[in-house]
Parts: sequence; C-alpha cells; structure tokens
Amino acid sequence: MGRLTGGDPSLLRRINSTVVLHALRGAHSPTLSHLVKVTGLSRPTVEGVVEGLIEAGLVAEAPAEEGAARRQGRPARRFRFRTEAGHLLGIEIGPHRVAGLLSDLAGRVIGSAQRPVLESASADERLERVRAVVAEVLRRTGVARGSLRAVGVGSPGIVEADGTVRLGTALPGWTGLPLGDRLRRSFRCPVLVENDANAAALAEHWKGAAADSDDVVFVLAGLSPGAGSLIGGRLHRGFGGAAGEIGALHLLGRGARPEKLLSTTGQPLHPLDEAQVARVFALARDGDARARDAVNRFIQRLVHDVAALVLALDPELVVVGGWAAGLNDVLDPLRAELDRYCLRPPRVELSLLGEAAVATGALRLALDHVEEQLFAVEGTATAHR
Amino acid sequence: MGRLTGGDPSLLRRINSTVVLHALRGAHSPTLSHLVKVTGLSRPTVEGVVEGLIEAGLVAEAPAEEGAARRQGRPARRFRFRTEAGHLLGIEIGPHRVAGLLSDLAGRVIGSAQRPVLESASADERLERVRAVVAEVLRRTGVARGSLRAVGVGSPGIVEADGTVRLGTALPGWTGLPLGDRLRRSFRCPVLVENDANAAALAEHWKGAAADSDDVVFVLAGLSPGAGSLIGGRLHRGFGGAAGEIGALHLLGRGARPEKLLSTTGQPLHPLDEAQVARVFALARDGDARARDAVNRFIQRLVHDVAALVLALDPELVVVGGWAAGLNDVLDPLRAELDRYCLRPPRVELSLLGEAAVATGALRLALDHVEEQLFAVEGTATAHR
Repeated sequence: MGRLTGGDPSLLRRINSTVVLHALRGAHSPTLSHLVKVTGLSRPTVEGVVEGLIEAGLVAEAPAEEGAARRQGRPARRFRFRTEAGHLLGIEIGPHRVAGLLSDLAGRVIGSAQRPVLESASADERLERVRAVVAEVLRRTGVARGSLRAVGVGSPGIVEADGTVRLGTALPGWTGLPLGDRLRRSFRCPVLVENDANAAALAEHWKGAAADSDDVVFVLAGLSPGAGSLIGGRLHRGFGGAAGEIGALHLLGRGARPEKLLSTTGQPLHPLDEAQVARVFALARDGDARARDAVNRFIQRLVHDVAALVLALDPELVVVGGWAAGLNDVLDPLRAELDRYCLRPPRVELSLLGEAAVATGALRLALDHVEEQLFAVEGTATAHR
Repeated sequence: MGRLTGGDPSLLRRINSTVVLHALRGAHSPTLSHLVKVTGLSRPTVEGVVEGLIEAGLVAEAPAEEGAARRQGRPARRFRFRTEAGHLLGIEIGPHRVAGLLSDLAGRVIGSAQRPVLESASADERLERVRAVVAEVLRRTGVARGSLRAVGVGSPGIVEADGTVRLGTALPGWTGLPLGDRLRRSFRCPVLVENDANAAALAEHWKGAAADSDDVVFVLAGLSPGAGSLIGGRLHRGFGGAAGEIGALHLLGRGARPEKLLSTTGQPLHPLDEAQVARVFALARDGDARARDAVNRFIQRLVHDVAALVLALDPELVVVGGWAAGLNDVLDPLRAELDRYCLRPPRVELSLLGEAAVATGALRLALDHVEEQLFAVEGTATAHR
C-alpha cells in the first residue's frame, strides 16, 4: 500500500486542483457554479484553485456565452483549460525514416514532418535527421521550442528507463547509445524514450484498433517480430524493458533464420527490405508456388511467436501492425491457428494507425508524462486515455 | 484516473482507520502517543479510530509494559491488533491429494491437514475429501468454523472470477465445475478459487524463493507445465484467466506429445505418475543412456516453454517448482539455455516451498482478501506482503 497521510494539506490542494482541472477538461467552458456542482468542492475552494491555475497559465477565462447579455444581470464567468499552454512532440526513429508529430496539451495533432534516412546511417547521422525533422515541424506550425512540455521517442531496441538503448541490433550504432541523453541536449523539457513496438501498442490503445481493450498485445510484424503489451491499460515493459522481444524463441529450435523464411530463392532476404517482402506477398497472391511456400513459412513463424505471447499473457486482443504490405494475408491464418491452440483465443485485428503508430505512441508517452504532472495524485493511477 | 472526491468524510474516516491499523500492526503494542506520532493524525482522531476498532473486535488493549508501574503516574495504555479475531484457510485441491493450512489474521500458520485422493476420483469424491480436510484442521486447532474470514483454494485449470473451472483437464469432472459455488456451501465467508500455478507464484513471493522480487514467473514443472506470473508484485491472470497456460505451444510445432518426452520405452508415461518420472531422473543420474535422452528431451521442452514466458514477460526471476524429484537436474541446463537466448536472462531459482506452495498461495489469497477489506482505500493498491 502506498504511503497514506492523515490530512496532508498540500496533498488535499493537489487533489482539489486535479479535480477542478479534470472538470474543466470534461466540460465546455464551465462556470464556477458548474465546477462547484461537478467537483463537490466548496465555492471558495474552487475559486482559489481556478485563480491558481490561471496564474500558472493552465486556465483562461472563456468568452461569455452568446445571448448571455440578454439575461438579467452580469453573465457568469466561464473558464477553459488552455490546451495551447504547451505542446508535445512524438518522434519515431526507424530504420528507413524519422517522423515527428506535434500536438497541443490535449493531444490534438497540429503538425507533422518526416524524412527518409538510410538504413546504414550512423547514429550521428540518424540523430541529425531527428533534429532536422523537429526543426521542420516547429517551423511549419510556428510553435516555439520553449513551448514543448515533453518529447516522446519510439525506436527499435531494448530501452532502459533513462533512455539508453541496451540492445538495438536493427540500427547501426544503436546498442549502448545514450539516446535519451543525446536528445535531451536539444530540448529543455523531459525526453522519454520507448521501444517502438511498445509505443505502437500505446498508440493503438489511444486512437487505433485497441481503443476498446485494456489487455492488448501489439505485434510489430517483421522478419524478426517485436511486440508491445498493455495489461490493464498500462504498458508492460518487463523487469529489464525486454518484454515482448520474442524474436529469439526460434533460436531454441531448429527453425530457419528469419531472413530465409520469406525467400523464394534460398538466398536470405535483406531483413529490412520491405519492398522485397511486398513483392513476395504479391507473387503469392498471384499464385506463384514458391512465393506461397515462403509466405506460409513466414506465417507459421509469426503464428508461433504470437501464440507464445498469447499463452503467456492471455490478452483480450492481438493487433498486428508493422509492414503495410501482406499483413491482410496473415490475419486469417493467424486467427485460425490461435483458435486451434489457445485455451482462450483472443480477437485478432489489423493495426488502424499503420505507419503512424510509432510516432503516435511516442506522442502519447509525452502526453502521459504531462498529464501525470498535471493530474496525478499520490496513490492514484493515470489512465492512458 | 480513479474517481476523486474533494473531501469525502467517510473516505477520510476509512483512510484514518487504515493508517491506524497499519501502525498497530507495524509496532509492538504501541501507545496512543506512538500512534499519534507515527500516523500524523490528531490525538482525538486516533482515540476515536482506536475505540471503533476495539468495538469491531479488531483491536484490544495490551497489558502494560513490565516496569511501567515503577515510573511516575499511571502507565500509558497500549494496544494491539487482534490477529486472533479471525482465521483464514488455504486449500490445495490436487490430482493426488488435498491439503489445508489454517492461519490467524496475520497469516501465521497454526494448523494443517492433508489427505491423499485418487487421481481418478470424481469431482464429488474430491470435494468430499476437501470437506474432511477442513473438518480435520478445524478440529485439531479448536478453531470454530464461524471464525473463518476467508478461504482460498488452489487447483489446476483455468478458473473464472467466480470460481468456476472453465477448463481443467488434469482432474476428472473438473471442466465446467462451479468449484467456488460448491465450496461456498460449506463456509459462510468468501471463498476465492485460483489456478494452482498462480497460487504457487503468490506463495513463493510471500515466503519463498521470490520474496525479494516483484516480477516473477513461477513454473509448475510437469509433463504439461503451467505457470503463474507476478508483475509489479501482483498476480497477472490474463484477460480470461488463462495466462501462463503455455502447454499448448508445442502443438504448433511437430514436437512429441508431452507424455512421450520422458519415456524410455517409447510408451507414453502416465501424465501424473510422479514416481515413474522420479525413476527416469534417477536412471539418468546413474548413467542410463535412454533415461538421459529422455531427461534431455524433457529439459529441452521445459526450456522452450520457459523461454517463451521469459521473452514475453521479461521477469526478474524464474522459480521452478512442482515435482519434488529431478528438478535439481533441470536448473543448470535451464539457466545455461536462458543465458544463451534471452536478451536479458532472468535469475532461475528452485521453489523453496515445494509441496506446500499451492496451499500456502491459497492462504495468501484469503489473507489478501481480508487485508483488502480491512486496509484498502479507494484508489490505493494493497501489496502482497
């Protein structure tokens, strides 16, 4: 049990502040009377809290309602949460591209930018690309860098709590990179780094295929798949941040290396060559026997990986994302196999956010951080939506 | 975020009650002054709460300290939590035996009983055995049935929230059995039913090999292994209570049926014949080549199952329990393989509680339930220790 205090006045003030901010966000320009009614607090308490929030720049007086002047006396003052009081940034740092999303404090996206990057780019080159994308999205939206309250980042690899990449074989120079510290040089606000599949899981839960479920496994399909899991609506990172890194499971058996699975020539595919993968799926759809065999091998492997996650975690829902191409062909066989082997098969859905999932999840991380600062009270949990 | 209330007086009373009870449990017969100091509450508040707890039978005045009479004036009143104010029962219903543990409200075991049961016994026969074990442990300890505050039960199978066994192939007549409802006829207190591996995980966390870790996978080794997981100190049951039921993973591959793994004759072993399993392990230790092959096959399978759990969940610690025999031979190969294939290998330890794990975990479930009633406050979580 968390620490409990009998009557800590600063805790009570924080609770009251939180309650009023929640009410302000939930209603359309409420009056003081409305806030008093909704919160159950006394009128002087609400007045004090609102004044404090106005001083902090988080609340502003809203314009009086249309027609209010016609009524008797002075119209009641109305207030609103200043969603423009700060901004958030979500960044995807991937093998082929860097993407950024900028939002207001309500998480409403107001700008985006993205740039390609060579898979072979060094860590310095990739970080330079990040800085360029950030500068571009800020310039396009006219938002000052100082207005950023938090920055979220999604990237392949096992990421430590401080944003250091413990292991990241997908990108050159990524293992051991103090990614969080490197990026913090560019911002005066907190920078939160997360594994890409974990970020994508948060995103699908926030505004994608997993919006109606709190117990979700998101599979970032690829030649070596990764996964992110939500348990009770919260990200499950694992003790060392490695949860869902299921790719090594096959090394225990005698299965083919992942790069050979989708090959139609016996030569391994390049692990990250999505165009080549898309060609194999297209050939299979056109009836090419060798391509069909390759796709079947790939699906069997994916089914086995997803089954291991499902048996271990028992989620309500599995969301499959990652490659744009071919995933539709994977869905039905995956459902059929999970139905056969899982004691309680989960629903299986395609990602709704597609390529935007990782950056959107990174944005959600930044939003969570700010909401925790603004709204969280000791002993309570912040929901992800 | 949970519901927040501005100044709910009944919530405040509950918080205060909880704070005082915690302080009473944490100290040795504290005085009112000590409680005031520890809780930060006012003296009249503490006095009121303590009087309420005495009326509820949960607190009693403790004898004055030795030598107190020699000091000036009347000695300060001292109080204690009445751990004898109620009792808890933990029951294991297994294939070969039924076992019961009785404890006081502090979870201190004061009695136990167990009886063998035929693996082929019907559900009715097995429940009759449960009633006999309960009657025996109550008689031995002289505790009245009405003093029971909660009963926990651990048993194989996927268990629904209401205690119905959704799927339980290990025991005859178990699938579909409303186990919770059937047992509730014998008790006037709440009855909580849990999967056996889940219960064992709680037990090892409470007073076993996992006492120092909150992120644990407990593997109940067997021909078809089950597992229970703690994440952040809390049981992870999964969306449908099936988390950790990893046994089906091999059906996806072309592996041998579990019963054949440990066979030295080609004939399947009886799934639950532990004596036969122990003989195979003993033969292998004596250098019998076929037994060694069989044990190696078994270890490979177990390693694969545990690896799937570890890659999915990334626990700090894996505890292996279940069979008494042979497990020592499994530990080192398991460690070596996990070190090879897991990005962040967990520690691997042997169960400390052995055969007592399931009943001990069932007792912990009952204790958790009562502690939640006594101590939990809206928006706070109760730790498992």
